[in-house]
Amino acid sequence: MTEPILWIAPGACSLAPHILIHEAEIDFKTVVLSAKAGFPEEYRHVNPKARVPIFQLGDETITEVPAIMTAISQLSPNKHLLGKTNLEIVRTYEWFNWISGTLHGQAFGGLRRPSRFSDDPQTYDSIKAKGKKTVEESFTYIEENLKGNHAVGDTFTAVDAYLLVFYRWGNETGYDMRVKYPKFTGLVMEALKRDSVNAAIEDEGIEFWFAKS
Amino acid sequence: MTEPILWIAPGACSLAPHILIHEAEIDFKTVVLSAKAGFPEEYRHVNPKARVPIFQLGDETITEVPAIMTAISQLSPNKHLLGKTNLEIVRTYEWFNWISGTLHGQAFGGLRRPSRFSDDPQTYDSIKAKGKKTVEESFTYIEENLKGNHAVGDTFTAVDAYLLVFYRWGNETGYDMRVKYPKFTGLVMEALKRDSVNAAIEDEGIEFWFAKS
Ligand SMILES: N[C@@H](CCC(=O)N[C@@H](CS)C(=O)NCC(=O)O)C(=O)O
Ligand SMILES: N[C@@H](CCC(=O)N[C@@H](CS)C(=O)NCC(=O)O)C(=O)O
Repeated sequence: MTEPILWIAPGACSLAPHILIHEAEIDFKTVVLSAKAGFPEEYRHVNPKARVPIFQLGDETITEVPAIMTAISQLSPNKHLLGKTNLEIVRTYEWFNWISGTLHGQAFGGLRRPSRFSDDPQTYDSIKAKGKKTVEESFTYIEENLKGNHAVGDTFTAVDAYLLVFYRWGNETGYDMRVKYPKFTGLVMEALKRDSVNAAIEDEGIEFWFAKS
Repeated sequence: MTEPILWIAPGACSLAPHILIHEAEIDFKTVVLSAKAGFPEEYRHVNPKARVPIFQLGDETITEVPAIMTAISQLSPNKHLLGKTNLEIVRTYEWFNWISGTLHGQAFGGLRRPSRFSDDPQTYDSIKAKGKKTVEESFTYIEENLKGNHAVGDTFTAVDAYLLVFYRWGNETGYDMRVKYPKFTGLVMEALKRDSVNAAIEDEGIEFWFAKS
């Protein structure tokens, strides 16, 4: 089989599967897009939903972060990247769905992409403000629900990689994450010790910390 | 172990795991709430996210439809309720995440719960209109992506149960689903032949079709 291909945009949610594929230690290629101004029209045929990440595995094209992370984990089953027990796997999917739907889609979606929720630009300030509020509520939820430096079980899983993306976005938004969210910071500091995390950040050519943070 | 408990609201997205637990043929109990006017405050301690479904399995409380369906499938592993092969399982999670985040959260969320996206009631008409548009785009996406009477592989999976919920909401919203979405209708008609689907609908005391539909 040819190497799988991961389509990413630097610093986007695609950073999570990008970290995970390094962690899985499988060979892969990337295609790098810019998605800041929206997904480029010329690639819509690859993913009609017009989003990154996209994962090409042989003839199959897979979308949605949780599905891509499931596929990556299947390629290295002995690493248990979704958790070691049945219950841990359930907790992983619980985090995945909340991160993707609430933290990413609803909270950051409102803050950064208000046009997904209304066609009237006059409503955008209000949608952004509510998105910001939901981001803060979501970070508080994370802070209150972490028991240690890993979200699931006592080892690194795909959930830690996924959470790290939004911690970075929190920095980017100007929150003083280290002061406001010490437990979330603990998880991220632990993740930043890993080769996989540093390799993905370096590949993407992004900073993890921002001037303000 | 005591019987698992599924917290539902009649006709809500909890109908999907409710169908699945019947399909899994395991004994369970339900707690029935009304969520139309919002999740009841007095149960917030059970799920601080204030949503149904909630699944109690021994001492564990599990939230988020895809995670609950994963847990139910684990209880009856021989039924392969998430698909038979690794690739089918990936496709199941791809559908799950899109259904939960885009079709449910963004599209129907905008249409039915605009206050999740703005605190200013003057924006609600615009958010509802955009939600409705996204519902229609999402139904078109489903119609274009179904290859037969099952969303994943050639047998009934949790995805069929999940899609059926939103077909029903389409009826409720007043869309002529049978005329507009024949493939989606094919999947739903096939599902409506199953004992599990009929048992869950009957337990919840809901109609599947509405006067208009
Ligand atoms: N539900 C999708 C969401 C993917 C998503 O929103 N990706 C963003 C980057 S973080 C994107 O491609 N945005 C481009 C756009 O909105 O036009 C998933 O979980 O993969
Ligand atoms: N992401 C959650 C969403 C659950 C959800 O939105 N449930 C609705 C019923 S369909 C609810 O409880 N709504 C009550 C409210 O919004 O107050 C999941 O997938 O389980």
